[in-house]
Amino acid sequence: MKALVYNGPGQRSWRDVSDPVIEDPEDAIVRVDAVTICGTDLHILKGDVPTVDRGRVLGHEAVGTVLEVGDSVRGVTPGDRVLISCITACGRCAYCRAGRYGQCLGGGGWILGHLIDGTQAEQVRVPFADRSVHRLPAEVETESALLLADILPTAYEVGTLAGQVTPGDTVVIVGAGPIGLAALATCGLYSPAKLIVVEQAESRQKAALEHGADVALGAGDTVAAAVAELTGGLGADVAIEAVGVPETFELCTEVIRPGGRVANVGVHGAPATLHLEKLWIRDVTITTGLVDTSSTPRLLGMLAAGRLALPGLITHRFGLAEMQDAYDTFARPAETGALKVALFNEETLTT
Amino acid sequence: MKALVYNGPGQRSWRDVSDPVIEDPEDAIVRVDAVTICGTDLHILKGDVPTVDRGRVLGHEAVGTVLEVGDSVRGVTPGDRVLISCITACGRCAYCRAGRYGQCLGGGGWILGHLIDGTQAEQVRVPFADRSVHRLPAEVETESALLLADILPTAYEVGTLAGQVTPGDTVVIVGAGPIGLAALATCGLYSPAKLIVVEQAESRQKAALEHGADVALGAGDTVAAAVAELTGGLGADVAIEAVGVPETFELCTEVIRPGGRVANVGVHGAPATLHLEKLWIRDVTITTGLVDTSSTPRLLGMLAAGRLALPGLITHRFGLAEMQDAYDTFARPAETGALKVALFNEETLTT
Repeated sequence: MKALVYNGPGQRSWRDVSDPVIEDPEDAIVRVDAVTICGTDLHILKGDVPTVDRGRVLGHEAVGTVLEVGDSVRGVTPGDRVLISCITACGRCAYCRAGRYGQCLGGGGWILGHLIDGTQAEQVRVPFADRSVHRLPAEVETESALLLADILPTAYEVGTLAGQVTPGDTVVIVGAGPIGLAALATCGLYSPAKLIVVEQAESRQKAALEHGADVALGAGDTVAAAVAELTGGLGADVAIEAVGVPETFELCTEVIRPGGRVANVGVHGAPATLHLEKLWIRDVTITTGLVDTSSTPRLLGMLAAGRLALPGLITHRFGLAEMQDAYDTFARPAETGALKVALFNEETLTT
Repeated sequence: MKALVYNGPGQRSWRDVSDPVIEDPEDAIVRVDAVTICGTDLHILKGDVPTVDRGRVLGHEAVGTVLEVGDSVRGVTPGDRVLISCITACGRCAYCRAGRYGQCLGGGGWILGHLIDGTQAEQVRVPFADRSVHRLPAEVETESALLLADILPTAYEVGTLAGQVTPGDTVVIVGAGPIGLAALATCGLYSPAKLIVVEQAESRQKAALEHGADVALGAGDTVAAAVAELTGGLGADVAIEAVGVPETFELCTEVIRPGGRVANVGVHGAPATLHLEKLWIRDVTITTGLVDTSSTPRLLGMLAAGRLALPGLITHRFGLAEMQDAYDTFARPAETGALKVALFNEETLTT
């Protein structure tokens, strides 16, 4: 089959690899019908995630059809249309038993397109299938479902929930890429007083305003002053970091009020400076996290009920074999205006 | 009267200053019967707290006797024996109304020995007296009460509660000075599985073991490995920073498990490095804070009931006029073995 292979920092190829096979009774083999590219894949290609080996098939978000299951799999059968979540879960370790699947110690967690071959391929082996794929109701469209593989639960759990967004809060979201926009949508569920987005690209500022932001600020030295002015001088209740560079993290710690929370969602490849000489006295809470996807069934129910939508988030569509073009488009959002790109296996989707 | 005056970094004097007077109807003037020195005072003298002006009388912890009150004060009257808490509270601002007195916006918060003259003097003016002093029950001894002015509520609120110490947790406390020992005592209220102290000074290691630590580790490169070995390779549930330098903060972020919490209690004068390239994926929570003293009435009740004790924490006792000697002793714990020093106004205490 064909797959997108990581060949070391800056290097990727779309080439032939072996078809996946059942290796464990809990595995499923899933045909990839639709797949997307994550900002994390770009971080991997930058070399920010050294745990990814050369030769790895990337990708951890897809919608597909079950082709084959191991002897122990009970929750899905061949022919089922499923969401492949970015997180797989052994279901047995202390973290899984506490619902913290992202930190699974039993061989799960974020492994697809990271420690094992991923979803940017014609087929993928999904371990622990009963706890790693979600059967999709017919009323949930493939494009909406794709956003549930990673960005919606990540923005919700690691941003909105970790930041303890509460009715009446003023929230600053730094970065209006797909994760930032998904954070806007999930913060909106909690009736914030004001949603402020910080984003350099004008096209993304526009998207943020369309997705519920009350104010869009350009990045730069004046952001902290502008947030102070918008919050009576105190700062925001919550700042959500959705970029993944030291500067944007540090900005988050500057724009929050005493007692405020910073929820880091971005994938980082370098340390940041934590200004404890200012922050020690300010009662701040900073969280980091990998999504657990424990919210995925709930978010799926909301999508099916029409209670959650991210219209226009998928800006570019490709055939699966156009993987390299899709990467080129996604990696240059300033030129292409790309938010989320989706690739479809046109043969299987039309059958 | 005599008072300990800050004359800029490294400079202090015990000298004559004007007696305090009632400036506001909510003020009380309190005679200082017993007072102590805080690690924060040493940070001020190092120049770590630039908001302290030259000429400031230091000190924010004392037990005393009310001499005079303003017209609006109802909770205490002259002659009352009171605890002077490190935090004063206007009681009117949004933070005070939420019980977050440390962040008071109405002129309170940590102001004594910081923004206004403090308790290392024969008398002190305490603003917002009804919400800033606590009447002491007769059964609470002066020395025990002194520990309630700052270190016990600070260790409890900013360490144990902010770190969400939970039954069964393994907790690492970095620094076994007075705050570290008070953190040990208050963590102990939550039935932890294991209390590990990291401390260079042998005398403080010994004190930690006497105050409930299960293990005392010397500082150094091997601490993270030792904690890993004590925790089945995963790391601690909670790390409490009770020193206030970048290295000890960074150590805290190294010794916690995925999903763990770092509660920073130390006063910092310099930024730390936050290794987001490792931490982004590990579900960590980092908190900072200034004590609110919202727990002080509860802790006072526990002291009165004999349910909380820090025996041996006060290692050195002085007369009030020996303030400079007391500072010299407290500032060189490696030589003197000092933990907490207490100074008594011998004339008033014996009457």
